[in-house]
Amino acid sequence: MTPDRDWFTNENCSVARTLEIIGERWTMLVLREAFYRVRRFEDFQRNIGVARNILSARLRTLVEHGILERVKYQDRPPRFEYRLTEKGIDLYPILIALMQWGDRHAGVETGPPVVLEHRGCGKQTRPTLVCSECGEPIGARDMRAKRGPGAFLKEA
Amino acid sequence: MTPDRDWFTNENCSVARTLEIIGERWTMLVLREAFYRVRRFEDFQRNIGVARNILSARLRTLVEHGILERVKYQDRPPRFEYRLTEKGIDLYPILIALMQWGDRHAGVETGPPVVLEHRGCGKQTRPTLVCSECGEPIGARDMRAKRGPGAFLKEA
Repeated sequence: MTPDRDWFTNENCSVARTLEIIGERWTMLVLREAFYRVRRFEDFQRNIGVARNILSARLRTLVEHGILERVKYQDRPPRFEYRLTEKGIDLYPILIALMQWGDRHAGVETGPPVVLEHRGCGKQTRPTLVCSECGEPIGARDMRAKRGPGAFLKEA
Repeated sequence: MTPDRDWFTNENCSVARTLEIIGERWTMLVLREAFYRVRRFEDFQRNIGVARNILSARLRTLVEHGILERVKYQDRPPRFEYRLTEKGIDLYPILIALMQWGDRHAGVETGPPVVLEHRGCGKQTRPTLVCSECGEPIGARDMRAKRGPGAFLKEA
């Protein structure tokens, strides 16, 4: 390991563990649609343009991990839809971070296709990352990563 | 498209465009290491445990997109290292969002391996997403997505 840190590997790393669940190609696009209240297989399929067998597999994985819930909405014939759980809704900051970077660095020349309005204050908003303690905006250079309780013990 | 939105597809979607660049397996782990100031091929390789040919390809892609810069640090024999550019440093919120979700929903039982300290105020912090206009914390349910300047024109 490098001098900078020896207290985690992919095994206990929260980033790696998250990517194991949602890091597959197409999965974030399935989730993007879910946040737009898309719930039915046909709508996911059409909006994302993903092959049906891949979409089936991704939906199954998301249900297995409790990110989407599979709910029957019709009896004859039985039909199911997919809804975000609370665990799934917690993925929102990831989607926002991907969108904001794309708007700035990978976006179309005419500007972002989507802008966000905060229901609370009614204004167009740019979600901003701040320190939970002092409220100041934060970026990579403002942060120091330290050993947490889930760190590996240092090898002797 | 669903009733909820018809103004973007993967083509002009900032999320999709970002994933095209950094959505490949291993890429976020390369970036994780870069934020820990890892710069050399051998260190990336050892820390991530990725095959050398895959690592080479991922580093090349990141350099091509201006996320990492390839800098010669030794002449004989010539040796190169990889450094985050400003565009790369802007990826930090994505990494933080992945980490926070993982800490909460995919983490190890003993707790997060990494905790963050804000250099500015010196306290242990949980980066928090707030509205740029009113400063209130925001989640998915607080937000309304609207057509931006890069939206497709509605078809007649």
